[in-house]
Amino acid sequence: MDVFNASVDKKLFTPGPLGVSMTTKQAMLRDLGSRDTAFIDTVKKIRSKLLDVAGVPAQVFTSVPVQGSGTYAVEAVFHTALPTTGKALLLVNGAYGKRMKKICELAGLAHQTEIFSENMKVAPSAVEEILQNDPSFTLVAVVHCETSSGIINPVSEIGCIVKNHIPDASYFVDAMSSFGAIPLDLQASKVDYLVSSANKCLEGVPGFSFVIARLDHLLQCKGNSTSLSLDLYDQYDNLEKTHQFRFTPPTHSMLAFQQALLELEQEGGVLERGKRYQKNCQIIREGMKKFGFREFLDSSHKGYIITSFCFPKDPKFVFEEFYHRLNEKGLVIYPGKVLDSDCFRIGNIGHLFPDDMTHLLQCIKEVCQEMEMSFPINN
Amino acid sequence: MDVFNASVDKKLFTPGPLGVSMTTKQAMLRDLGSRDTAFIDTVKKIRSKLLDVAGVPAQVFTSVPVQGSGTYAVEAVFHTALPTTGKALLLVNGAYGKRMKKICELAGLAHQTEIFSENMKVAPSAVEEILQNDPSFTLVAVVHCETSSGIINPVSEIGCIVKNHIPDASYFVDAMSSFGAIPLDLQASKVDYLVSSANKCLEGVPGFSFVIARLDHLLQCKGNSTSLSLDLYDQYDNLEKTHQFRFTPPTHSMLAFQQALLELEQEGGVLERGKRYQKNCQIIREGMKKFGFREFLDSSHKGYIITSFCFPKDPKFVFEEFYHRLNEKGLVIYPGKVLDSDCFRIGNIGHLFPDDMTHLLQCIKEVCQEMEMSFPINN
Repeated sequence: MDVFNASVDKKLFTPGPLGVSMTTKQAMLRDLGSRDTAFIDTVKKIRSKLLDVAGVPAQVFTSVPVQGSGTYAVEAVFHTALPTTGKALLLVNGAYGKRMKKICELAGLAHQTEIFSENMKVAPSAVEEILQNDPSFTLVAVVHCETSSGIINPVSEIGCIVKNHIPDASYFVDAMSSFGAIPLDLQASKVDYLVSSANKCLEGVPGFSFVIARLDHLLQCKGNSTSLSLDLYDQYDNLEKTHQFRFTPPTHSMLAFQQALLELEQEGGVLERGKRYQKNCQIIREGMKKFGFREFLDSSHKGYIITSFCFPKDPKFVFEEFYHRLNEKGLVIYPGKVLDSDCFRIGNIGHLFPDDMTHLLQCIKEVCQEMEMSFPINN
Repeated sequence: MDVFNASVDKKLFTPGPLGVSMTTKQAMLRDLGSRDTAFIDTVKKIRSKLLDVAGVPAQVFTSVPVQGSGTYAVEAVFHTALPTTGKALLLVNGAYGKRMKKICELAGLAHQTEIFSENMKVAPSAVEEILQNDPSFTLVAVVHCETSSGIINPVSEIGCIVKNHIPDASYFVDAMSSFGAIPLDLQASKVDYLVSSANKCLEGVPGFSFVIARLDHLLQCKGNSTSLSLDLYDQYDNLEKTHQFRFTPPTHSMLAFQQALLELEQEGGVLERGKRYQKNCQIIREGMKKFGFREFLDSSHKGYIITSFCFPKDPKFVFEEFYHRLNEKGLVIYPGKVLDSDCFRIGNIGHLFPDDMTHLLQCIKEVCQEMEMSFPINN
């Protein structure tokens, strides 16, 4: 049985799916009817707890789980919050920002894209200039932690600028890989829609994502969506009325998530989880620096979710080989590049602890030696 | 720990989510990277095995898993297979047919709906007449087992009529609750798109659905979808090129599904699984008949997935009480009605065996006695 090999499973240093605790996985060893009281309790608890994690009051915000991956929830926000008469400003400095553009393009939703360099934060001054010149935007969207590089965008500053210039516009933050570990004051940051996923910093298993939405904004969105499945308003409305999903939810993922939220609380909440990730991150960055690896981002731009390292110039470094040799040692990093620049990424979120990061460093050293690279690595 | 209460979990006699084997659930006790070789193998195996279960050759058909519930896959087919220049004929005799209508309405996709009585099969002669009068349809859609009543529609007959009249039209069968237990010859039935879900007769856990698509039809659909997440062509194209999902897949659900497919094979495949469900179904129907419950469908219309029973006329029968009393005994039936008629439904798919059905009957008898209903129940 595969089950009993779980202990020899590889460690995941990816942006997700990532590793979660065994107790979180064990919570899936049950089958609940999605319309039965036991599961309805789970849904209620999860929706309420998500507002707690977000630090927002239930009178002002609501949380809406959406079946599918994080991209489904991002798309649901655009389909629902952007009527055909609306126009979005998309602030893009990486792959996930570009995906927002693709969603709007396919759906025929009016939008303007402002592209920033992948290794630079979205510049609030540029946003200010755009909004000064054109106050017709009804929604402004940005990614909090651009997982493709690890950069953290100044979502609070941008939010205040948006509301100063266009008080009625909706402000949408894709906090996929930051929510639950990088504190964000949604109200002070003027966030109306925030999206994240079960399988990032909250350490649940994949299967659904969720939106934290300001009620006064969401309640205006009835009838906007051209997609039934991705109609966030309809999903919200049905959950409010019945505490049930419109369509079959991933019951097992949600049971795992309930347990994961409990374990977040036991760890000490968002702040303590953030501290563990910061420690993980510091270990890998300091170690990689000692080896001679150069980071893609300068120190003013970095978060502590994932780190992009530039490919070393040493001709003996071939990423595919580097990846596979680490893989054979039971360590999985992200197997491809998503930026325009030649980088690879090491994540430090999920059920990872300082010892895991130290072990990864040791294995990276061994792999570089096996590949006959010289230390410190020639950049 | 909740985990150890799994053995006292309720039995699910619903149309889904339904109960699955413990070994299927245990397959979820692992975390795999979605872009790592181990998971890529799982994806390849699942996609190939689905074609085996469907009984179609890989040169002619492909299988495309879609994150989310079954409705997501239904919607993905409409968004992808119906261009703005197309027109769909929807053959509707229950809630799931109506849902197809809603999907097309919201997406602004041209369609004509033909409504049939909920207790009658879709009539092939009516389909023939419609297509004779209007050969402009580019897609015809019908539900195989209308789970809202349990009725089985004559999908083979309809398929042949569609292709006789409009050889180029796509024929789309929603086989959500029948695939894997009610044999269907896709090629003889001229099916171009078939949709089902991980959590029906294949006895996986919820989290994704899938489409079995004829390649020559799907390959014409590039660029049709206005939704990125629900673009079936793009999902297919990426899976073919990389064996990876575009966006995070529910890795744990897919591991469970891999195990579930193995257990289907061990049971003897679609025919043997069908036989178990038939036996389950026969037990509940005969027992309920003895008690005096009347079925909604007459014997010529029924499948063996789920049975709709009319509410007894006895004023002592209150469905909510009936449901809750059964629930307290650890038995979950579907808690609400979805037809226009007053019916309740008992499913017999999932990890259920004849003993479970006999036990359910015994409990139904006890509940009726507790509710002081007279036997045989007065209809």
